[in-house]
Amino acid sequence: MSGISTFNPPVRTLMGPGPSDVPPRVLEALSRPTIGHLDPRFVDMMEEVKRMLQYAFMTDNAMTMPVSAPGSAGMETCFANLLEPGDKVIVCQNGVFGGRMKENVIRCGGEAIMVEDEWGKVVDVQKVEDALKAHPDAKVLAFVHAETSTGAQSDAATLCRLAREHDCLSIVDAVTSLGGTPVRVDDWGADAIYSGTQKCLSCVPGLSPVSFSEAALEVIRKRNTPVQSWFLDLNLVMGYWGSGAQRSYHHTAPVNSLYALHEALCILQEEGLENAWARHEKHHQALKAGLEAMGMNFVVKEGDRLPQLNAVSVPEGVDEAAVRRALLEDFNLEIGAGLGALAGKVWRIGLMGHASNQKNVLLCLSALEAVLGQMKAPIAKGAALDAAMAIYA
Amino acid sequence: MSGISTFNPPVRTLMGPGPSDVPPRVLEALSRPTIGHLDPRFVDMMEEVKRMLQYAFMTDNAMTMPVSAPGSAGMETCFANLLEPGDKVIVCQNGVFGGRMKENVIRCGGEAIMVEDEWGKVVDVQKVEDALKAHPDAKVLAFVHAETSTGAQSDAATLCRLAREHDCLSIVDAVTSLGGTPVRVDDWGADAIYSGTQKCLSCVPGLSPVSFSEAALEVIRKRNTPVQSWFLDLNLVMGYWGSGAQRSYHHTAPVNSLYALHEALCILQEEGLENAWARHEKHHQALKAGLEAMGMNFVVKEGDRLPQLNAVSVPEGVDEAAVRRALLEDFNLEIGAGLGALAGKVWRIGLMGHASNQKNVLLCLSALEAVLGQMKAPIAKGAALDAAMAIYA
Repeated sequence: MSGISTFNPPVRTLMGPGPSDVPPRVLEALSRPTIGHLDPRFVDMMEEVKRMLQYAFMTDNAMTMPVSAPGSAGMETCFANLLEPGDKVIVCQNGVFGGRMKENVIRCGGEAIMVEDEWGKVVDVQKVEDALKAHPDAKVLAFVHAETSTGAQSDAATLCRLAREHDCLSIVDAVTSLGGTPVRVDDWGADAIYSGTQKCLSCVPGLSPVSFSEAALEVIRKRNTPVQSWFLDLNLVMGYWGSGAQRSYHHTAPVNSLYALHEALCILQEEGLENAWARHEKHHQALKAGLEAMGMNFVVKEGDRLPQLNAVSVPEGVDEAAVRRALLEDFNLEIGAGLGALAGKVWRIGLMGHASNQKNVLLCLSALEAVLGQMKAPIAKGAALDAAMAIYA
Repeated sequence: MSGISTFNPPVRTLMGPGPSDVPPRVLEALSRPTIGHLDPRFVDMMEEVKRMLQYAFMTDNAMTMPVSAPGSAGMETCFANLLEPGDKVIVCQNGVFGGRMKENVIRCGGEAIMVEDEWGKVVDVQKVEDALKAHPDAKVLAFVHAETSTGAQSDAATLCRLAREHDCLSIVDAVTSLGGTPVRVDDWGADAIYSGTQKCLSCVPGLSPVSFSEAALEVIRKRNTPVQSWFLDLNLVMGYWGSGAQRSYHHTAPVNSLYALHEALCILQEEGLENAWARHEKHHQALKAGLEAMGMNFVVKEGDRLPQLNAVSVPEGVDEAAVRRALLEDFNLEIGAGLGALAGKVWRIGLMGHASNQKNVLLCLSALEAVLGQMKAPIAKGAALDAAMAIYA
């Protein structure tokens, strides 16, 4: 065996749907010496991570912690712990991730009642209320707050309220929203919520922050059947992440990734949630002004958009994959392709966390204009940067 | 929110059951700039990781890759993919991890037939053969090659052969063996095997290398029911980790942790598997000589021991937790406690991967002698270092 040497990644600017640019502080923290997952110093750090996640999620929920795996495992943690075979779940789908929720329900032996909306639209609150009335035996309402596949942001406050009014627990996907737009777990009364570290928290991918209400925990404690996943069983995980002095071994925590999350949360706390939201909004406005000056159109209507995930239609006649390839090769700039129903039709331009800054907005607009110009795409040239700079003025 | 600042871990020497000391090269690789999980350069790196894992596992299995979560999730990947409700599994238990396998079988809706051996003993091959004969309808034989809770190494070659002779698939736990003692997947004919990155590979915790035979994949492809975990469903994961030019998004890979694994595998390849095994054996002999010179006794009998995991009985009258605390506080040295049936009765001293070196052996022996001496424990003093050095001579 030979011939494989160390991997030196290119330095990219990450403006896709995540991972986003990870700041040097977080990368440096990541590389600090590994210590044991039961070391008292590590346990102290875990407590700090929990407190800072409570801040990010705006919650007092005691069960607020990072799952030791990516966002998809965070989603599965919510469904596998709350559902038992035969349970009915109302699942809202307006993009890829609602579909993934449906898959989770089925694999837990549950029944998924689908409330579908067009991709790019927000979840229709009226349809959800109708479904809750039509299915009074539903146990859970599940929806995506921030649909990463389209950039639509649904009304989580109203949806969680409807769930409560109909004696349902709520499961909320906040993978792309946490740290970028308000995620008010306690105000909403959300019961189970999951996110990812590689979006607006600008940490490395691989962890999934989650939070569970007391009502959700009560349901989990009183299950009739064991949680089908041993690895994700919160009854066991809490023995390790709980706040007792005595931590019991469940699995080996991803120690260094947790250093990185700790640092990313320190950065968020230093900036302040409100300031982080405002920053995401400002750079979104600048990017939007530039893209629209080029003549490009957003998939989601104004007012329903996530500032951190800008889905725009590919101009007529343009080979979208060739554009992304040119951006990557000539500008070291990554933007995202469309997923599912939107594959080949849209680009997804992320302005997430650390990556939501003026330099990235200007790079993206100039690179896109250059590449589309070379391809003789039907765009207006020369106006994008001025339009963006007018927002910054 | 305020008052939490950056976390600077102490610099420990990690001689517990894992994580083990991570070499600076791996920590540095970990902190390289994050790129996208679908970036062509990242995809090339994934191919290299797969090739180097094939080398480590001594296999040509195409489906050889790291699961994006710790070893427990690797275990669950094996059980959740191979089992369907009602399937019968013969599970060998001679420590903690056989018990965890049983939990996995139950949570997959299977039936676990237990073959139990005393903790510290290896799996009794005759009992397994009897169980296979008594249960001709068993689908899987599951056992732990390297029992991290005791330090016993079972005869994987014979157990896998027995499984094949009785038309069973085999599931093998190689969490603590991979990179430390021979794991010959193809020679053994193992069907599903999982490991961890934080043991003898000396990478950070959080990933679980796995490998599946063609026979196992055929069973997975032909399932009647969906795999109960969406996140761990190999039918989906292979769309991302498969070798086609077209990678499809499944979950966001833990990009930086994979840089670290790549580097750790480069180091293994540079040293060579045989040299790594020999190094583990040499330092084990030195540690053993020193511990025995102090009068300490191994839990596992000679010939059945893992050189990388040394479980020794706590001397009579000694407060084992106080000893570990003193080692940590006064020497920055971590050794492991006993688990399960051995809790409070043994220490587990790891010599794994990068941590298997002369400096660590001598530190451990001198620190242990000093601490036990202070506590007036019934040990022989002054002979340990000479005994260890005689091995190195």
